[in-house]
Amino acid sequence: MAKGRGAAARTARRAGASKAKPAPKKADAGHPVSPLAPKSFAALPPLAGVRLATAAAGVRYKDRTDVLMAVMAPGTQVAGVFTRSKTSSAPVEWCRTGLKGGEARALVVNSGNANAFTGKAGFEGAREVAVSAAAVVGCKAQEVFLASTGVIGEPLPAQKITKVLGSLAEQGSAGGWRAAAEAIMTTDTYPKLATAAAQIDGHKVTINGIAKGSGMIAPDMATMLAFVFTDANLPASVLQDLLSSGVKPSFNAITVDSDTSTSDTLLLFATGKGAHHPAISKANDRRLADFKRKLDELLLNLALQVVRDGEGARKQIRIDVTGAASDDSAKTVALAVANSPLVKTAIAGNDANWGRVVMAVGKAGEPADRDKLKIAFGNQVVAEKGERSPRYDEAAATRAVSGSEVEIVIDLGIGKGRSRVWTCDLTEGYIRINGSYRS
Amino acid sequence: MAKGRGAAARTARRAGASKAKPAPKKADAGHPVSPLAPKSFAALPPLAGVRLATAAAGVRYKDRTDVLMAVMAPGTQVAGVFTRSKTSSAPVEWCRTGLKGGEARALVVNSGNANAFTGKAGFEGAREVAVSAAAVVGCKAQEVFLASTGVIGEPLPAQKITKVLGSLAEQGSAGGWRAAAEAIMTTDTYPKLATAAAQIDGHKVTINGIAKGSGMIAPDMATMLAFVFTDANLPASVLQDLLSSGVKPSFNAITVDSDTSTSDTLLLFATGKGAHHPAISKANDRRLADFKRKLDELLLNLALQVVRDGEGARKQIRIDVTGAASDDSAKTVALAVANSPLVKTAIAGNDANWGRVVMAVGKAGEPADRDKLKIAFGNQVVAEKGERSPRYDEAAATRAVSGSEVEIVIDLGIGKGRSRVWTCDLTEGYIRINGSYRS
Repeated sequence: MAKGRGAAARTARRAGASKAKPAPKKADAGHPVSPLAPKSFAALPPLAGVRLATAAAGVRYKDRTDVLMAVMAPGTQVAGVFTRSKTSSAPVEWCRTGLKGGEARALVVNSGNANAFTGKAGFEGAREVAVSAAAVVGCKAQEVFLASTGVIGEPLPAQKITKVLGSLAEQGSAGGWRAAAEAIMTTDTYPKLATAAAQIDGHKVTINGIAKGSGMIAPDMATMLAFVFTDANLPASVLQDLLSSGVKPSFNAITVDSDTSTSDTLLLFATGKGAHHPAISKANDRRLADFKRKLDELLLNLALQVVRDGEGARKQIRIDVTGAASDDSAKTVALAVANSPLVKTAIAGNDANWGRVVMAVGKAGEPADRDKLKIAFGNQVVAEKGERSPRYDEAAATRAVSGSEVEIVIDLGIGKGRSRVWTCDLTEGYIRINGSYRS
Repeated sequence: MAKGRGAAARTARRAGASKAKPAPKKADAGHPVSPLAPKSFAALPPLAGVRLATAAAGVRYKDRTDVLMAVMAPGTQVAGVFTRSKTSSAPVEWCRTGLKGGEARALVVNSGNANAFTGKAGFEGAREVAVSAAAVVGCKAQEVFLASTGVIGEPLPAQKITKVLGSLAEQGSAGGWRAAAEAIMTTDTYPKLATAAAQIDGHKVTINGIAKGSGMIAPDMATMLAFVFTDANLPASVLQDLLSSGVKPSFNAITVDSDTSTSDTLLLFATGKGAHHPAISKANDRRLADFKRKLDELLLNLALQVVRDGEGARKQIRIDVTGAASDDSAKTVALAVANSPLVKTAIAGNDANWGRVVMAVGKAGEPADRDKLKIAFGNQVVAEKGERSPRYDEAAATRAVSGSEVEIVIDLGIGKGRSRVWTCDLTEGYIRINGSYRS
């Protein structure tokens, strides 16, 4: 998906693969489960018009599922947003083309191989998977959507995937969301799921979503993938408007390490099989207000699950910038803070180091006035009017950054622009995961 | 100094201060000397028209020198470049104003307190030091240049500095460069010095420079300071042109962690006392060719000493980008690679992880064509024409990234733009230094 400069790309170790547990409910060997993992996982209800199945195809991992197939009812509408990387993967290119038709009948996702920077052979591999899926589903290849996550630069072993598609299409069931979320994991330390019920003009519809963050397998990088399904009856154009709007304050407002994957993909499918609500042709139709709100919440929920599973993360950090010259300017400042290694290491060390926040604001290059800048950790004001706040209380400020959820509040005091972004702290765990010797 | 997005801002621990050695020839306790430290230090010759002296004023550190005073001959010309931070420190503001006069008689630098984000009191503190120095030297306050590095947000104890200025002005000698470089250190693990001899129209002149990188003392950040002196006779306008040009491929081409200090300062002084070469009024005068080359080399030498002392650094990484749409575009790509945590951790782990280089090129947002991109580590081509190179040799590629100096070579293949930047690897040492609990 399009994450701009702030991104959730992450990476992992080849070594992890061979040590992966049979059921990927725990993190790969060597990756302790994030302390920010949810206490329990959302139970996603069946969703009319979607059948899911997973397989252990051995794309790269052994003894775990690595292919997800979702078969959707005829007429399913689709929207998507993708990485802005100039070196995007073959599946991303395939999906961009497929989106023009607006209809989807199948989604095939594999973990273990990103099919990125694999040249023409990579695109042929993607096409082979799509053609094969189309044959078993009985649809056009362009109605098959693809995502791959894992090693970069290695040819996709397409036949390992195509040979399981027939049985996956047969097995598919309306349940199995947890298994689906697990099959797309790489170095994720927990599966990411969310569900919501919404009303459209008095008719109940369901939204289910799964996502993955941290990626894996050297030489490689992680990828942010998210797939959201609803049984609402909405045309592709409306879905695209909702998704493009909903992604801004969620997946486009998170960053783990400022790196952007070649493969980031967020797709939204609407089967139209869940309710007989009236036809809706505009995203700003008032009858969509509840659906839009619930979709936005679900996207943010999934995005935060990705942040909270950032490599080495021990804390979630929220950054609120207000009083900026514009919303864009506020976001630039917020991302400068969120991506500052000095800020992130300070928070990791429970250090109320507001000087580093001043530095990050200053380096963002956006309009700012030192003497109007105000900085707080939670509700503890630490700096204002160009100097340390007279209200500064070191012990209270330290407490404010010592929990597992930290809020940095910055008021630039010069305009009305505002932005909120999330990140995680930067710990030695990040270095260990990403700097380990390839073997 | 102006470092744009890539910067050498760094930070350190309050704890380090009290454990500092009497003579700061070794790094502060807890900071092992960089493995990239020079085997021996340059012996800088005396420089006509400059007298140096240092003092242990107890600004913050105990039992070590922390104030440097340089007194320059009447008529000394000065040029400077500074941080682009929007929250620049009081001394930076003071110097920006002073530069308009073009003349300098004294430089006063303190370590231990950055006098940044200290409001009006901070500016008054800077003025107090300048006025006091002017009184002992017998010059205008505007002819005194200042730099401070250390804690942010704490009021400058100006009187601790002013009370030593009288004896510093008396003691000053033409030697003492090593002591000068040591007095401005914060978390630097070695003093940074360089010297060069140059010819101007057949007359020998000398250029001496000192610098510091890693900074200091929570809540705080590091600062890049560099002071270069020559006995050549050159007007401020020529110095400024030479400096602005020389800084681009040196201090503006290094990055440790993408963070930018509030205090970065690079000053160039010319006393005119070293040689009786003819007057020169333009930086592009052919008679300056050798001087310009030697100055550029000296600036690069100092800048690389800063990179090689980056917090936690174990490797120097050079990134060459060619074939870009423009030089600026090449630099954006090079800095995206240099600032990528995933690239820097991979190199730290001796991992020839070219997929992360592809990712970093892709995220830079500059014109690029996946199928024309070529990537090498040293002379080992690893990727070309949109996929892994047929010449790829894992063992050779690993060797190419396993030394203490690594070269990443990227040809975008679409234009003639080029850029070279330097950085260091990202290790757990960086996290340890910057994430340690304040105490």
